[in-house]
Formats: sequence, C-alpha cells, structure tokens
Amino acid sequence: MNSPNEFNLSCPIPIENYPRVLLAHGGGGRLMHQLIEKIFTSSFKNEILANRHDGATLNLPAGKLAFTTDSYVVSPLFFPGGDIGALSIYGTVNDLAMCGARPLYISAGFIIEEGFSMDTLWQIAQSMKSASQKAGVLIVTGDTKVVDKGKGDGVFINTAGVGIIEHDFEIGPRSIMDEDVIILNGDIGRHGIAIMASREGLEFETTITSDCAPLWETVEALLKSGIEINCLRDLTRGGLASALIELAEQSNRQFVVEENAIPVNPEVQAACEILGFDPIYVANEGRLIAFVPAKDAAKAIAVMREIHSDIKPSVIGKVSGNSPGTVIMKSRIGAERVIDMLSGEQLPRIC
Amino acid sequence: MNSPNEFNLSCPIPIENYPRVLLAHGGGGRLMHQLIEKIFTSSFKNEILANRHDGATLNLPAGKLAFTTDSYVVSPLFFPGGDIGALSIYGTVNDLAMCGARPLYISAGFIIEEGFSMDTLWQIAQSMKSASQKAGVLIVTGDTKVVDKGKGDGVFINTAGVGIIEHDFEIGPRSIMDEDVIILNGDIGRHGIAIMASREGLEFETTITSDCAPLWETVEALLKSGIEINCLRDLTRGGLASALIELAEQSNRQFVVEENAIPVNPEVQAACEILGFDPIYVANEGRLIAFVPAKDAAKAIAVMREIHSDIKPSVIGKVSGNSPGTVIMKSRIGAERVIDMLSGEQLPRIC
Repeated sequence: MNSPNEFNLSCPIPIENYPRVLLAHGGGGRLMHQLIEKIFTSSFKNEILANRHDGATLNLPAGKLAFTTDSYVVSPLFFPGGDIGALSIYGTVNDLAMCGARPLYISAGFIIEEGFSMDTLWQIAQSMKSASQKAGVLIVTGDTKVVDKGKGDGVFINTAGVGIIEHDFEIGPRSIMDEDVIILNGDIGRHGIAIMASREGLEFETTITSDCAPLWETVEALLKSGIEINCLRDLTRGGLASALIELAEQSNRQFVVEENAIPVNPEVQAACEILGFDPIYVANEGRLIAFVPAKDAAKAIAVMREIHSDIKPSVIGKVSGNSPGTVIMKSRIGAERVIDMLSGEQLPRIC
Repeated sequence: MNSPNEFNLSCPIPIENYPRVLLAHGGGGRLMHQLIEKIFTSSFKNEILANRHDGATLNLPAGKLAFTTDSYVVSPLFFPGGDIGALSIYGTVNDLAMCGARPLYISAGFIIEEGFSMDTLWQIAQSMKSASQKAGVLIVTGDTKVVDKGKGDGVFINTAGVGIIEHDFEIGPRSIMDEDVIILNGDIGRHGIAIMASREGLEFETTITSDCAPLWETVEALLKSGIEINCLRDLTRGGLASALIELAEQSNRQFVVEENAIPVNPEVQAACEILGFDPIYVANEGRLIAFVPAKDAAKAIAVMREIHSDIKPSVIGKVSGNSPGTVIMKSRIGAERVIDMLSGEQLPRIC
C-alpha cells in the first residue's frame, strides 16, 4: 500500500514557508515556477523536460503512433495498492498498450485546489516518478493550475500519452473475428472494492488491494510471441461487463462468457455480496481482455502467466455470430442471460 | 463574443430528460456512452475518433514531433471574445506553434461538476468544434469524468496536442542570440482585462474582448518567409513581463525593452489604471514574442501584419549581453528599471 509517508525524500519546498498550495502557485509568477521546479521537474527529470519550452520536442521514427488521454479524479487520493499518482501513469500507459503501442512519453496536467498539502503533492509526484520508471515512460511536458478552495477536490491529474506501434496488427474492435476466444489476465473487482473499502472504512480479514499496474509488459510479450492479437481492452470504469458490451457493440458480434471461468478473489466476492455489487461491473486498473484466435489461446495464457506469476489468466468466453452486439453470460448453474451496461457506475470517482 | 446561445444547433440530449450532468454520466455505463456519443463524438467527428478505441492511432512521417498539454479552468466559462472551449483548443495549438510545430491532433479531457448544465456543455463542445476547424486540428481522443457537486467548478478541460516540426530550426530559449530583436505581435492585456471585467461586472465604453486566437498561421508564415526564428513564446498567465523574464533566465541573456513600444489599447490601459494592474503582467491568449536577428525584423513585421491586419506587430526591444538573466524596461521618460516576476498573478483563474 502506498501512503503519504512511504517515500523517504522530504518535500523540497520548505513546509514551514508553504505548508499548503496557494492560488498564487498557479499564477504564472515566481511561486508557480518554484513549485514546478521543486516538486515536478526535480521528480520527473529528463533531458526533454529540461528544455523548459512550451512543449516537448520528440524524435520518433516514421510509422504509427498511438495518442490517448485520461483524467484522474479518484477519491481517496491514496488507497491500498496505489494512489492517484501511480494511477495517472498506469492508466494512460495501459490505454496506449491496448492500442498495441509501446508507451514512450507522458504529459501531466495538475489541477490543484487552493490549500492542498504541499507535502502530499510532493508524495504524489514521487509516486508518479516511481510509476513512470516502472512503466518505462518519460514525463516530458506538463501544466499546473490552482483553483479556489471549494472549487476542486485536492488534486485532479490529467495525463496524455504518446506511444509507438512497432507491428502490423490492426488491434481494435473492428478486428474481432468469429470464434476468437476471450482471455482475461486475472481476477476482477479489486480496484473498485479497494476504493470502496478505503472510502467507507470497511475492514476485511486481509486488506483488499487495488490491481493498479502497468500492462505494456504483458502486451509486449504477447506481441513478441507471434500470437495474432485481434483486440485488447483494459477493464476500468464499468468493469468487465461494460468492456465486453462496448466491444460486442463496436464489433457487431456476440460474445458468450462463462461466469464460472471469471476469477474473483473470495474476499472481493464477499465484499460484493455485502455491498450488493456484481463483480463484473466493478472497476479494475490492471486487468485486460484479449481477443485471439482459438488456436493461440493456450500460448497466450502461458505468455501472460510468465509475465505475472501472481495472477491467473484464463479463457472466459468466445465470440459467436448469432445475435450481434450482445453479451451472453452463462451462469454457474448453466442458465443464460443477456447482460447489459448499467446506466451509471455502482461507485463513482474510482479512477 | 461567444455566448451560450451563439450556436444554433440545439443539444442532442433531450434537456427535458437530462437538463444537468449526473454523476452517472461519468460512471462508465450507458449514460456516459450516450453523453460522449451525443455531445462530444457528434461534435468533433472524424475518422480517427470514430474508431472508438482506448487511444487514437495516427500515421505520421518520421521526424520531430512536438507534444504539449494545458488544463483550462477559466472563470467565467464564457467571456467577451471567447469561452473555455475555444481557449482549450487555441491555448494548446499555440503551445505547439511556439515549438515551431504544425498543430495536428488534440486530446480532450473533461472534468465536469455534477449538476452542470447539459446545454452549456453542448455549447462548449460546439465552440471546440469551431475552434478546432479554425486552427486546422482534429480532436482524436478524449475522456470524461464527473465529480460530485461542490468538488469542481462547472467544467475543467485539459487538452494535449501533437504537432509536427517540418523545418530544421532549433526554436527555443537556448537559441536566443545577442543582438536578436524582440517582436511582439499586437497589443497586450486584453484577455486578462476581459475576464476581470466579465467577472466583476465592470463596464467600459466599448466591451474589451479577449485576444484569444490561434497563432500557428502567423508562425507558419514566418517560417515560410525564410526568416531565421530563434525563439517564440506565447504570452499567457503572468503576461509579457513573465515571459520575458523566463526567457532571459533560460537563455542566460539580458533583454532591454522599450515600454513606449509596447502597444496597449487605451481602454485596457484605463482599466489597468483603475484596477491597479500593470498591463505587462496581464494575461493574453493570442499574443506572442518572437526573437529574430535584427536584419529580419522588418520582414517579420511585414509577414505578421499580412496575417492579421487588425493588430499591430512591433519591435519592443533587443537582446544584449550585459547582465545575463535580467530584463530592463526603459520607461516612456527614459528611466531604466529591472523588472521581476510577481510572486503570483494579479488575477487567478484566467486560463
């Protein structure tokens, strides 16, 4: 679990002078420059960022790039298994990975509420530093805004990412084929339940930790193994169910999923039962589904298992052409039902 | 002036059903998909966005790219001469242009406060559509989050931008040379005063409008004219003074600026006097300074004038090597003073 005290380095802006972020820290003057220099540039340091221009200049080979963005508004900012800083890096890295792109460069935009703890901001920057190193990306450009007290919620972070596509696969909903199998890389529902438990002060026998993790390593291994990858999607807001339904609609195909084959940690399952949640709708931050031809299923699972020995990938279903745009769930007792998206989320502000 | 009623098209989400944005509109389910589809995808439509994957896939030639980001938290959302939507496109386009890059692709991340007017969100999307067309960019990927009422301020927008550098100049603070002249493309202080007047209900004889505008056309014309461009910087938070001081420090050179040569609209000047502001610190959103060799000054001004006949570019000063890292302002009566950055901004939440 990350916590505001996990990192040893202490905040380089003297807390006795500026214990909290002021509106002036976003005003374009000396204080803003000091905040950016001491909190962000010193944490993320790299040659591109050091140019301190209005944007970063990147040298890239010709070819296909992936470009994506996500804003992070999670509450609470620190939770078992992660924090908003790590999430803001991994979430965007994962969106690039789902395009089959090697994540390279990240931008970071901070919207800070006046009065936010300077030390907590520093801890978040340290977490972003550590996450970007783990994910192999550079934070090359950024922006800092401060909004009046009561007009924000601590800190919101937006990251955008640029990655490079080094292969010829067309990875996306349009490439999903009949008879593809659907592989899930691990157990579902950890992130949503970790946030919920943390928010509501719920206690379980062991602490349920978020699955928050970068997924490029897994995708890279799949690409290198020679498996034909048709589509990838990470499971975030709306959980496994919403991702499946989105892809069924976008590919205009039908998916048949075995409820029995979907791994759910017993404590997550218990928490879901207490809270009245269905784990297939609960958010994740380190899980993906991959659509591959049936012949490649065993190999794909072996590759995934090699990368993350602690989670269990499995085939959870397959693509079938009967009733396009729908997802059928076969229950443990053999009953079939069509699953639909919820209107909203069982739990807001989880990412 | 843009206003919520300027655009004729009416909001495609029936106002009688959803007059306001709900938390569920950010929850990853049906309502979120409907909001994204009807408000954003329908406004920004292009082939790349239509792929509806986790990120956009872009085909780019080899070479140097520019990558930048900015969050927009301006209050009020609509002001004379612009709105948060136009600002969120032009601001990021301008950061790319300052790297000498042709702006191509934009990402858009929305953080919406629960209860925000659906129709206003639609008007903002329409304004972004119109601004992106004017600036020649495509909005290719995005993200939507909804935060609880009281934890945001209507809407915050983050955009990131990718542009391509099609020339061999090294445009940036490190390329500034002694004896370069400093050219300003027009009168300063409009944006900050327009926001201030709008926020405080101040009335002047004529409405002071923001200078909010895209700058790539000007930069492109300068590049094509064969002028040697050493550095470009757009003037935003902190105004002309902060931009000059930043560049003097980053280039380790001294700039000498003639106060007399800096154009200020008489009404902006009057407003500044009433409010106790110095126009050199007031925010702009369509102004830049260019550092070019003295021999190219007349040509640069002629090129700028051709692009925007309504504003008056002028040489405001030059680079001199005497006292590196400082900016000297020569006043109207001949006195010299060293100008420094303010600690914060005279006015927060202006961009």
